[in-house]
Amino acid sequence: MLGTCLNQVRQNSPLVHNITNYVTVNDVANILLACGGSPIMSDDIQDVEDITSICGGLNINIGTLNQNTIPSMFAAGKKSNALGHPVLLDPVGAGASALRTQTALKLMEEVKFTVIRGNISEIKTLAAGSGSTRGVDADVADAVTEENLDASVAFAKAMAAKTGAVIAITGAIDLVADGERCYVIRNGRPEMGKITGTGCQLSGLTTAYVVANPGNELEAVAAAVASMGLAGEIGWANMAPTDGNSTYRNRIIDAIFHMDAETLDKGAKYEVR
Amino acid sequence: MLGTCLNQVRQNSPLVHNITNYVTVNDVANILLACGGSPIMSDDIQDVEDITSICGGLNINIGTLNQNTIPSMFAAGKKSNALGHPVLLDPVGAGASALRTQTALKLMEEVKFTVIRGNISEIKTLAAGSGSTRGVDADVADAVTEENLDASVAFAKAMAAKTGAVIAITGAIDLVADGERCYVIRNGRPEMGKITGTGCQLSGLTTAYVVANPGNELEAVAAAVASMGLAGEIGWANMAPTDGNSTYRNRIIDAIFHMDAETLDKGAKYEVR
Amino acid sequence: MLGTCLNQVRQNSPLVHNITNYVTVNDVANILLACGGSPIMSDDIQDVEDITSICGGLNINIGTLNQNTIPSMFAAGKKSNALGHPVLLDPVGAGASALRTQTALKLMEEVKFTVIRGNISEIKTLAAGSGSTRGVDADVADAVTEENLDASVAFAKAMAAKTGAVIAITGAIDLVADGERCYVIRNGRPEMGKITGTGCQLSGLTTAYVVANPGNELEAVAAAVASMGLAGEIGWANMAPTDGNSTYRNRIIDAIFHMDAETLDKGAKYEVR
Repeated sequence: MLGTCLNQVRQNSPLVHNITNYVTVNDVANILLACGGSPIMSDDIQDVEDITSICGGLNINIGTLNQNTIPSMFAAGKKSNALGHPVLLDPVGAGASALRTQTALKLMEEVKFTVIRGNISEIKTLAAGSGSTRGVDADVADAVTEENLDASVAFAKAMAAKTGAVIAITGAIDLVADGERCYVIRNGRPEMGKITGTGCQLSGLTTAYVVANPGNELEAVAAAVASMGLAGEIGWANMAPTDGNSTYRNRIIDAIFHMDAETLDKGAKYEVR
Repeated sequence: MLGTCLNQVRQNSPLVHNITNYVTVNDVANILLACGGSPIMSDDIQDVEDITSICGGLNINIGTLNQNTIPSMFAAGKKSNALGHPVLLDPVGAGASALRTQTALKLMEEVKFTVIRGNISEIKTLAAGSGSTRGVDADVADAVTEENLDASVAFAKAMAAKTGAVIAITGAIDLVADGERCYVIRNGRPEMGKITGTGCQLSGLTTAYVVANPGNELEAVAAAVASMGLAGEIGWANMAPTDGNSTYRNRIIDAIFHMDAETLDKGAKYEVR
Repeated sequence: MLGTCLNQVRQNSPLVHNITNYVTVNDVANILLACGGSPIMSDDIQDVEDITSICGGLNINIGTLNQNTIPSMFAAGKKSNALGHPVLLDPVGAGASALRTQTALKLMEEVKFTVIRGNISEIKTLAAGSGSTRGVDADVADAVTEENLDASVAFAKAMAAKTGAVIAITGAIDLVADGERCYVIRNGRPEMGKITGTGCQLSGLTTAYVVANPGNELEAVAAAVASMGLAGEIGWANMAPTDGNSTYRNRIIDAIFHMDAETLDKGAKYEVR
């Protein structure tokens, strides 16, 4: 089933407009190409509406937001909404600064998001309208674990119902929920946290999946999340003894490049609650 | 002959000022170092004239242009012109938005370019003063093919004659033309299109080649274009079965790092029309 | 001894706020993760004070400074000073433009730096209040050599005494000095100069080391500098014949990822003068 979503990406070659941070932007572009999509980056207020109009969807990542790019996020988001394009929000560092938290919350008020993807701290911040995160990593005390899984699933579903967006909370256990169903996904490797931008990459990838699978957003997001985790597993299996996090970054994108529907369907570890 | 141009780059170690996009900038810097040149990135209006003055040439890439960097492109371009430095234009996404098209066209009015390098859609946009591109990739219908080669060569020569710049149109078949002669280059691999920024990298590389080969611009651009395509072939030959587009990116730059004149002269596949 | 500093980084997982250039920012983030630290990038004037407040230290790199980020550097630096956090200055290209030189000098007036790390040309520029650099590389005529070592050590100590900062001058021979002692470090490979951003990476790494070793700044900086040079040696030893500078970049970060205290203590080549 998830493999069908992957095939749709390969067949439709979705063009994704990214307003994203300059830290991980190159990897976002390369993973979009790896999955079969195509990236465009544009963040100037005079450019974004034209660019988003020729794309299939929009990925907004606030990782290095600034006074110039924030208005562009709103303009592009509204234009995408008007065109009926899927829009994803990656609220990097929401909770870590007032600017990040307020910008993410205001975006959620003024733009209709198809997907919101973040770590548990970021999503909790958005749910609460406050909170704190340790940098851009999830607060360990707030991680989704087997012990708090029921409550976490309920939280994800409630957030999805409230926002109308598919909510993807990624970490050791990934949750992908709409108001009624939640994919609990157990792919991935802890070493993925030692690479900058696996979350940003996943947001780009997820946007491509949603664009290529209209009307099937929940499963599309689950497929993107599972494929990223599985790529982390495959990439790790391809590591030589002296390889470290920098090479691991390449091997994960390489694994997305080679992934097919059969591999994803066999390797995806998930349940639906 | 092309190998002689490569040797000039290794011997002269040209310093290249880049005003380029933040997506592929790291790869542009590394490929400039790989070929024997040296990169400087600077895009602030108060910084660019000083920086371009200590460099040998200027590479202007509009891939993530914005209100702050556009005036810097004009200021640096004019300063480079005044100093007699070669200047290259990479009109990324010309045709995809009004801002990109208008900025590229206005740059061509106010700055004298030594080289203009883009895909066929971008160059057609500049020739027409209008048009559309699908993101930053060439419109497939407009690709240079064996079937339309005569017309494409004529177009490139006419554009070169009109602008006074060497025109480099890159794709499956690459064309490098001045008003009278056109190199038709058949190096490269289709998989290069699955890496973000091979075009941006080539623009940086080309600027280094032109700086290091004064008075021999046409051949210098052809040498840069052929070396990039050949690096794509060599890099691909060095791929392991699990390697994908992210590793391929490294292998291409690595191939430029190791390339010598003999390798280029033996591997370059071109004719002059 | 140096290995103890490394262990402190692994144990304390320092969170480092980086205001750095967009050329090498991804590698800076990945090397911080590789050493056991955690990176945050933020450069907007409304964001930097909040972000630096939740971090342990601040890395200011002026490599692609602009009118928007310069005020952020001052604001973040002053906030970090008020909080007692270590702050590092990487004066990329000081001497290459008036804006870079003046910004670095003004930062030194208004912000108290714990460490200043650059090449010999940059540091000489800051010492003199003038000078020139060839791009971002050290002027070869001004390199630290065995022949001028005594004078260079005296210069580094004097600069440290004058500024109150640990001074790290990196090149073929690295010097790390406070007002009284100077580590002379002979790790590294000349090929490291063929990768963009080894200096920027070292500045990020050094900030993490200083944050994790309070009260032991001189040795912490020496440990960071030696570990980077040693990683360059280890990474080079892991190179395959077709690997070039792009792969070398990954291998160096990978070597930092795997480095432990024993490896560093055995491999570090230094004397204290």
